Amino acid sequence: MSSFAKMHQSNLNASLFGLSLDRHSGVPLHAQLTQALREMLRADPAAAGERLPPSRALAEELSVSRMTVTTAYDQLIAEGYLSTRPSGGTYVAEDLPHLAPPAPRDASHSQPHAAQTWLPFQPGLPDQALFPHRLWARHLERAWRNPDPALLDRPDPFGWPSLRQAIRDHLAAWRGLDCATEQVVITGGAWDGFDLIARAALPPGALMATEDPGWATMGHVLAASGITERPVRIDAEGLDPADLPPETRAVTITPSRHFPTGIAMPLTRRLALLDWARERDALIVEDDYDSEFRYRGQPLPALAGLDGLQRVIYMGSFSKLLSPALRIGYLVLPERLVTPMRTAIATTGSRVSMVPQPALASFMASGEFATHLRRMRRHYAKRQRYLLSELAGLEDYLQLQPDPSGMHLCAGLGPALAPFGDRAISERAKAEGLTLRALSSHARLPGAPQGLLLGYAAFDERALSTAANTLRTLLKTL
Amino acid sequence: MSSFAKMHQSNLNASLFGLSLDRHSGVPLHAQLTQALREMLRADPAAAGERLPPSRALAEELSVSRMTVTTAYDQLIAEGYLSTRPSGGTYVAEDLPHLAPPAPRDASHSQPHAAQTWLPFQPGLPDQALFPHRLWARHLERAWRNPDPALLDRPDPFGWPSLRQAIRDHLAAWRGLDCATEQVVITGGAWDGFDLIARAALPPGALMATEDPGWATMGHVLAASGITERPVRIDAEGLDPADLPPETRAVTITPSRHFPTGIAMPLTRRLALLDWARERDALIVEDDYDSEFRYRGQPLPALAGLDGLQRVIYMGSFSKLLSPALRIGYLVLPERLVTPMRTAIATTGSRVSMVPQPALASFMASGEFATHLRRMRRHYAKRQRYLLSELAGLEDYLQLQPDPSGMHLCAGLGPALAPFGDRAISERAKAEGLTLRALSSHARLPGAPQGLLLGYAAFDERALSTAANTLRTLLKTL
Repeated sequence: MSSFAKMHQSNLNASLFGLSLDRHSGVPLHAQLTQALREMLRADPAAAGERLPPSRALAEELSVSRMTVTTAYDQLIAEGYLSTRPSGGTYVAEDLPHLAPPAPRDASHSQPHAAQTWLPFQPGLPDQALFPHRLWARHLERAWRNPDPALLDRPDPFGWPSLRQAIRDHLAAWRGLDCATEQVVITGGAWDGFDLIARAALPPGALMATEDPGWATMGHVLAASGITERPVRIDAEGLDPADLPPETRAVTITPSRHFPTGIAMPLTRRLALLDWARERDALIVEDDYDSEFRYRGQPLPALAGLDGLQRVIYMGSFSKLLSPALRIGYLVLPERLVTPMRTAIATTGSRVSMVPQPALASFMASGEFATHLRRMRRHYAKRQRYLLSELAGLEDYLQLQPDPSGMHLCAGLGPALAPFGDRAISERAKAEGLTLRALSSHARLPGAPQGLLLGYAAFDERALSTAANTLRTLLKTL
Repeated sequence: MSSFAKMHQSNLNASLFGLSLDRHSGVPLHAQLTQALREMLRADPAAAGERLPPSRALAEELSVSRMTVTTAYDQLIAEGYLSTRPSGGTYVAEDLPHLAPPAPRDASHSQPHAAQTWLPFQPGLPDQALFPHRLWARHLERAWRNPDPALLDRPDPFGWPSLRQAIRDHLAAWRGLDCATEQVVITGGAWDGFDLIARAALPPGALMATEDPGWATMGHVLAASGITERPVRIDAEGLDPADLPPETRAVTITPSRHFPTGIAMPLTRRLALLDWARERDALIVEDDYDSEFRYRGQPLPALAGLDGLQRVIYMGSFSKLLSPALRIGYLVLPERLVTPMRTAIATTGSRVSMVPQPALASFMASGEFATHLRRMRRHYAKRQRYLLSELAGLEDYLQLQPDPSGMHLCAGLGPALAPFGDRAISERAKAEGLTLRALSSHARLPGAPQGLLLGYAAFDERALSTAANTLRTLLKTL
């Protein structure tokens, strides 16, 4: 024990020095330390005003780098738990913030109130350790050092023209979708996108059918946008237009890779949906969230391309291709909706920051974005193979097979797991520090299919191996 | 005429070489050229596929820098009007985009569909030529070169903690408002802010009273957020709670500096509004959009501070303090609304990009933001004085007096203008290339006060002088 620790025998310091961090959990050490220290402070109001050990002393005690400690301290200073004093030193804040229990969370898409680390097998997340931060920083710096005057002038509320052009080019090259730059609208993600669609293309409260199971947040997003949602159970080919209520004005589907089952909608079903939309004068929103990550075979081109962008609004995003931190998505509109959308946006303006847009445009135009996607595709394909090999021999528990695309596997329950139900298994896994989403928790209709989602894209082989071992032990001792 | 021009005798090139740019209009030359060329292309579908003069040749003909021409070409390439070919050269696109007339615009807060330059006397706009782009680029580069892992991890949907902390510190120093970081929520501007308030703090369709005259876009923003707006005519002290319908659940006011008249709400009226809110269990949204620009005397502290953040939500923005391109605003919530807001945001997630947030946080924490505000304050104070001196002797036309704060002057109509009405004068000014907003166009109720808004902050002395001369001639020849 260092001399500093001997001088300060308070509970807090003792707890801190006794802390044991797990080097193999896949959770960064600084995040573990931040979380542990935050919990200590919440549990111990008497620590208010107390001085924390210097970062060097704590780092020595915990055998971590000093950077790990200063990162944790800085985070908690930013959150208001800790403060610094002009005389030097880091102290517990005099009035600790929000000791109240955290706000209730949405079960499946929780957004906790302080930054936390995602755990395996969280699906739908790119590996942020592979985020090309140096390139990205350079594009940001270049775009803003001598900004195009138009950036600071009256920006087009549809978004920065060269970003819209770059998206157009990307869709032509990667998704077989031909459109004009004029049809591309930059959004602040799916929620913003549905909000704009509701205002420009649908009557108030219009009925929109969605896939069940599907994206768990969809209901909240549509409700917040004034759209009435009607979940419709999918079959082995996806959503069947024969199952749509007659008053349906729109459907949102994930034809390239159904979320979360991974089903690719066959051509016959695609054509049937387009026929339905034409007959009913209805709208299809094609949510194409990660189709670029295809590991084998030719991807089916976007449904919007098959339709010639007549009845289909194509919705894309950079959250999975690059980072959710960007919070940038886009819509590609049928030509007849361009003017109504301009009118809708003209009344309120855009909600999307211009700051990332020119940088993202040059990142795409330079070819570095495509290089990044190809690199991620190699990583993710390798990780999927690795996870499958790590989980080999569990056939009685998990029905797994290689998936030609995507960022997670959707496992059916084997005979040994069938008695438990996917939600109970998910709860048990949570107690072991695993995020193992239940397929049925993505459904609103009764009698939902059972399964477990195994996200692999965001985790390296070490993290996947540790998590697979934990899962193996868990399943065998249920 | 250059040899190049002699070789190409098409209409387009002849029109281009005949173009006359106005060096004294206050509109950048590249923007004038872009606009003129765009209009030529729209008017002349036969130009499709035609080769444009090399930038050097056109620059020589127009006596402008080559950069002016390449900036205009690049912009129109981005918009799809022009294209380049592998063999070199710039060409008119084969299929010119959107030759249809532009979408109808909101009269007072128009967002045109292509980047354009703001004209004097556009109010509510900072001078973007003074935007600290080198500093800003450096902060962006630093924040993203070695990003804090939490930036790419699970960001708090209330926003980046150190930005929320920096806003807290700014409000304490500049606006006399004490709050906890936990009460600050980062938004994508006013529309996003009202949308969040509607979801977290108001019943669906709740009646919100607004100031009349007021912000012309407000009605659209509230409607898009599911709030029912009731404009209420203000008197010389601002909005009077005695005029509020009994079913009012909330009011939005600009007590520090009423938009657009510039009235500062006196303390007695502030207290009366707080009493009203307490008695009715109602909510006040304090829209504090540019109070930092105060040139004389002490600013009245924020109403939210007087209230101790019990009944008042404070709404701020960086659009006028720094740049509308950021599209970043914030709310400061009463403590009792923090948990409902977390619940509301948890269901859909945030719409705000993380990209600018750490850079803005360090820009503020470094003190450079405060330096920038003080610098802008000096510029704007000087510009107001300059504009008043340039318009001296027009007392029969414009009732003008020095304003201790703000970014525009609100002029009453003198006896010589009274017969015309402010909207007619505004229309006439438009034809002369002046943006001269009518006060009555900011009102929805009949019998609105008459006046003209003279924004000066965004324009340098040369532009103000030119515009003041144009205005003088216009007023005297009405």
